[in-house]
Amino acid sequence: MSEQNRRIPRATIRRIPLYYRAIEQLQRQGVQRVRSDRLSEIIHIPSATIRRDFSHFGELGKSGYGYSVSRLAAAFGALLEVESAEHIAIIGVGGLGRALIVNNFRRNPDLTIVVAFDIDPAKVGQSIAGVPVYAFTELAQRLPPGVHTAIMAVPSAAQAAVVPVLENAGVTAIMTFAPLPVQCRPTTTIRYIDLTSELQSLLFTARQREAQVAKVD
Amino acid sequence: MSEQNRRIPRATIRRIPLYYRAIEQLQRQGVQRVRSDRLSEIIHIPSATIRRDFSHFGELGKSGYGYSVSRLAAAFGALLEVESAEHIAIIGVGGLGRALIVNNFRRNPDLTIVVAFDIDPAKVGQSIAGVPVYAFTELAQRLPPGVHTAIMAVPSAAQAAVVPVLENAGVTAIMTFAPLPVQCRPTTTIRYIDLTSELQSLLFTARQREAQVAKVD
Repeated sequence: MSEQNRRIPRATIRRIPLYYRAIEQLQRQGVQRVRSDRLSEIIHIPSATIRRDFSHFGELGKSGYGYSVSRLAAAFGALLEVESAEHIAIIGVGGLGRALIVNNFRRNPDLTIVVAFDIDPAKVGQSIAGVPVYAFTELAQRLPPGVHTAIMAVPSAAQAAVVPVLENAGVTAIMTFAPLPVQCRPTTTIRYIDLTSELQSLLFTARQREAQVAKVD
Repeated sequence: MSEQNRRIPRATIRRIPLYYRAIEQLQRQGVQRVRSDRLSEIIHIPSATIRRDFSHFGELGKSGYGYSVSRLAAAFGALLEVESAEHIAIIGVGGLGRALIVNNFRRNPDLTIVVAFDIDPAKVGQSIAGVPVYAFTELAQRLPPGVHTAIMAVPSAAQAAVVPVLENAGVTAIMTFAPLPVQCRPTTTIRYIDLTSELQSLLFTARQREAQVAKVD
């Protein structure tokens, strides 16, 4: 099997966190084996998708008899583990950026926003929940060594200008809330969180479901 | 082909907004045809995934010659269109809820947050960017008629208690920022936006890519 084929598909990786939390819940309840159809009921993902996703993880138990909850937990946990404490920079401290800093991924103690940047002189020099806000123009000097991850909470129009500055400072992983695809180096990984689109596709799915229910009636 | 098979897979639906915006950009630039490999460079989705996704939309042009940009725009636009103005309720006006209200999906004028609810007496009675905040206990009386969509920006522990209240008031589509899967009626559609998990899987993808680059070197 080629190296390419052995890579886990990106769509599968996106679902792993949801699987992991459901499996953790089952483990806490003392459940030892779980079938894909039961898991499908819990997390609202088709059981065929679950079986296909799990097939990338080798021996996890037979689908018909149920997957081993402990093996699933170990496989997904290893994949999601942040190996060392991950320090994160945030660009843009408007309402969303500020909310992210205050929340600061408290569910995962290994993920910590340690520094923020903004272009607004009124915000520079502030400290939000202990996180200092520096001028974006000083990013190269102010970004602490070892920070390779950034979250962009800037207007869409600003995004294209921010990315190269981050890349030049050594950032390789970027999560952004601006929807427009942006040019980046091949070595940079960008994850787009587009809340407007998420809501639109939620509404599409809900309408599709309503149409089906109407047909059955 | 059965009704089941003709449904568009949920993973495809999730990617449509990203496709749509890239296609809109190309259309503005006067591009008439686009091949999947070119689109793949723009939006960082494998071209095989793009071709598979597009296959659900019928005649869009031959893959080898490029897809018709105008047909793609029409197909995706029709799918994403919010047919009438969609009025949305938001539950929880902490930092994130407040940021969402202030932003209020300004990119799509058909999506409007019209009302907010919270359990904190200090917040009830406020108006945020013109959106009134009511007591969550009054939701049944205060939810305007025609609102079937809600966004939950509440702590994870509160989520399970909020969902049935929303369902009893006629809400059928829910977007939530709490990560734990929650019980709901079969007629309710829930979309989970889990920022911690998104960041974790971004880091996983970035590390996987770094490992590949290291291997090539």
